[in-house]
Amino acid sequence: MTESSDTAMGSYVTGGAFERDTQYIEDRIVADPDAVRALPAPPASKIGSLGFGLSEGAEAWPVEPGRYRLVAAAACPWANRTLIVRRLLGLEDVISLGQPGPVHDARSWTFDLDPDGRDPVLGTERLQENYFARFPGYPRGITVPAIVDVPSGGVVTNDYPQITLDFSTQWREFHRDGAPDLLPSDQIDEMWPIIERIFTEVNNGVYRCGFAGSQEAYDAAYERLWAAMDWLEERLSTRRFVMGDTITEADVRLFTTLARFDPVYHGHFKANRNKLSEMEHLWGYARDLYQTPGFGDTIDFTQIKQHYYATHADINPTRIVPLGPDLANWRTAHGRERLGGAPFGDGTPPQPKR
Amino acid sequence: MTESSDTAMGSYVTGGAFERDTQYIEDRIVADPDAVRALPAPPASKIGSLGFGLSEGAEAWPVEPGRYRLVAAAACPWANRTLIVRRLLGLEDVISLGQPGPVHDARSWTFDLDPDGRDPVLGTERLQENYFARFPGYPRGITVPAIVDVPSGGVVTNDYPQITLDFSTQWREFHRDGAPDLLPSDQIDEMWPIIERIFTEVNNGVYRCGFAGSQEAYDAAYERLWAAMDWLEERLSTRRFVMGDTITEADVRLFTTLARFDPVYHGHFKANRNKLSEMEHLWGYARDLYQTPGFGDTIDFTQIKQHYYATHADINPTRIVPLGPDLANWRTAHGRERLGGAPFGDGTPPQPKR
Repeated sequence: MTESSDTAMGSYVTGGAFERDTQYIEDRIVADPDAVRALPAPPASKIGSLGFGLSEGAEAWPVEPGRYRLVAAAACPWANRTLIVRRLLGLEDVISLGQPGPVHDARSWTFDLDPDGRDPVLGTERLQENYFARFPGYPRGITVPAIVDVPSGGVVTNDYPQITLDFSTQWREFHRDGAPDLLPSDQIDEMWPIIERIFTEVNNGVYRCGFAGSQEAYDAAYERLWAAMDWLEERLSTRRFVMGDTITEADVRLFTTLARFDPVYHGHFKANRNKLSEMEHLWGYARDLYQTPGFGDTIDFTQIKQHYYATHADINPTRIVPLGPDLANWRTAHGRERLGGAPFGDGTPPQPKR
Repeated sequence: MTESSDTAMGSYVTGGAFERDTQYIEDRIVADPDAVRALPAPPASKIGSLGFGLSEGAEAWPVEPGRYRLVAAAACPWANRTLIVRRLLGLEDVISLGQPGPVHDARSWTFDLDPDGRDPVLGTERLQENYFARFPGYPRGITVPAIVDVPSGGVVTNDYPQITLDFSTQWREFHRDGAPDLLPSDQIDEMWPIIERIFTEVNNGVYRCGFAGSQEAYDAAYERLWAAMDWLEERLSTRRFVMGDTITEADVRLFTTLARFDPVYHGHFKANRNKLSEMEHLWGYARDLYQTPGFGDTIDFTQIKQHYYATHADINPTRIVPLGPDLANWRTAHGRERLGGAPFGDGTPPQPKR
């Protein structure tokens, strides 16, 4: 097993085919720690779980406004999920936000955008310091998103598929008025296999194309990705959002990949059967979300492009960042209103970003 | 000055900015060698010249059916020009064709597609052998197109900007009935600056993007390229072809770059403000030519993609060739008939390729 250059995001290339490191710090921040400790351990899952307790060896931390800091680089699609859900649910006042810059080095994401290169609350220069504060010599990938316990400076969790689920289910007391229900109970059974397919075939599918170690591995990855893209294109031809009339967790997870598709994955990862903007329904859908408060206002195309093109020297040795594509088209009319529905259902959009 | 990996095509990267090697073997094959020897030497030119004699030290060879073999890889845009003009003028029976495969090594283009890996007429495995037969130890790039004197096995010329001009002007006796005049005398004055701008800004402009050695050099190259693409988009909004109602040498030179734009230059060279297929007039124009006998039938998208992605390890170290983009759209209706004109004017299209 050889590590790819994307170590800091926790990924590996094995025998030509890309595999994502799925070992994470699986502690959780929950409304009632004792109740969660009493629940059965969750099944192994790459997409998180609902209604289960703690993984073996994991701990439960109490929900507490102001205690935790979300560290989430704008560049990273996995971190982007947490930025969106935090915005949609109005958790900005109870969970603060630290943002590393787009270009991490081999060791860690760094707070290079902050004054003096230090996170103003945590006081650290590298996220690795916060991992080490909890687990000295932590040997696995220093990944975002991570939630840090501010008093101790140690990372509580970097279990990205679970973090957004817990924002929805465990922090409910602190959701803003009008916050959407991203996990409607009557849709969970249908949603879970869809979220899993989006993860394995799309979220991770683009990386499987880009980090393929052989032509054969790439060819197989490309076919898998586009089979899934065609499935979504068809699905979204009759549904305003992935599940139907309102936004859900499934939309958050799909959107963060779609936002990076034309700026990065199309060229850099060779996911280039066509541009997203050439797929009628997916493109309308992506713009619909982009123009919805809480989605587009978390997207920084400049950082996204810098991150991928400058970080992956094994596929872009010059580290030159393309000036294209022209992204003004994300603001154009999407026409998705014809399908009915409303992003927030009976709720309301979040206030403009501060 | 460090050589790029594209040495076999004769190019260099100097101080971050890409520069094309413009030293070529400037011998010419002409209808009347004595007359040409008597003409004044041409001015230095990267686009060839009309009405002049020989460059200093160059020789004149006589036009002679069956004597010469054009060596032109389908992958190479500079060689592609000669394939198109040979077809348009009907010179297939008088100038034979050898075709190296898409992937040359550091030394030379090779005849790896031929039985036993040897050109069936020249008997050589590498085009370098034919350069050496003429100039032992030839130190510059082993480039295509090259015209080889079959009896001696030596290269006569690799002066690609001049070769197509001489096909038009020197081989006229052997043009097919109905062959187009690609150099109409009443359009030359207008055409020459346009051909020069197409060369410096577009043909070479995409390479300047792809082989830029710094972000600054790339940024400048990108802006130059797209300024020229916008100029052509505007020009072709009212003209069926670059000069007007019929095809000329200018169309041949522009087309070979456009055919490679979405398959290669968009991603591999980061010429990605948009796809060619997103530019209304240029895309209609490119398809109009592609669907014209003599143009599209010289295009091998598979070899084109293999050549660039497998040869330039310094910008694509995995050498993985993307499966995209979907190129079926090149056969779609282009609608350019509305602008009037006809590709061959009073002439006729060439017969289907054998």
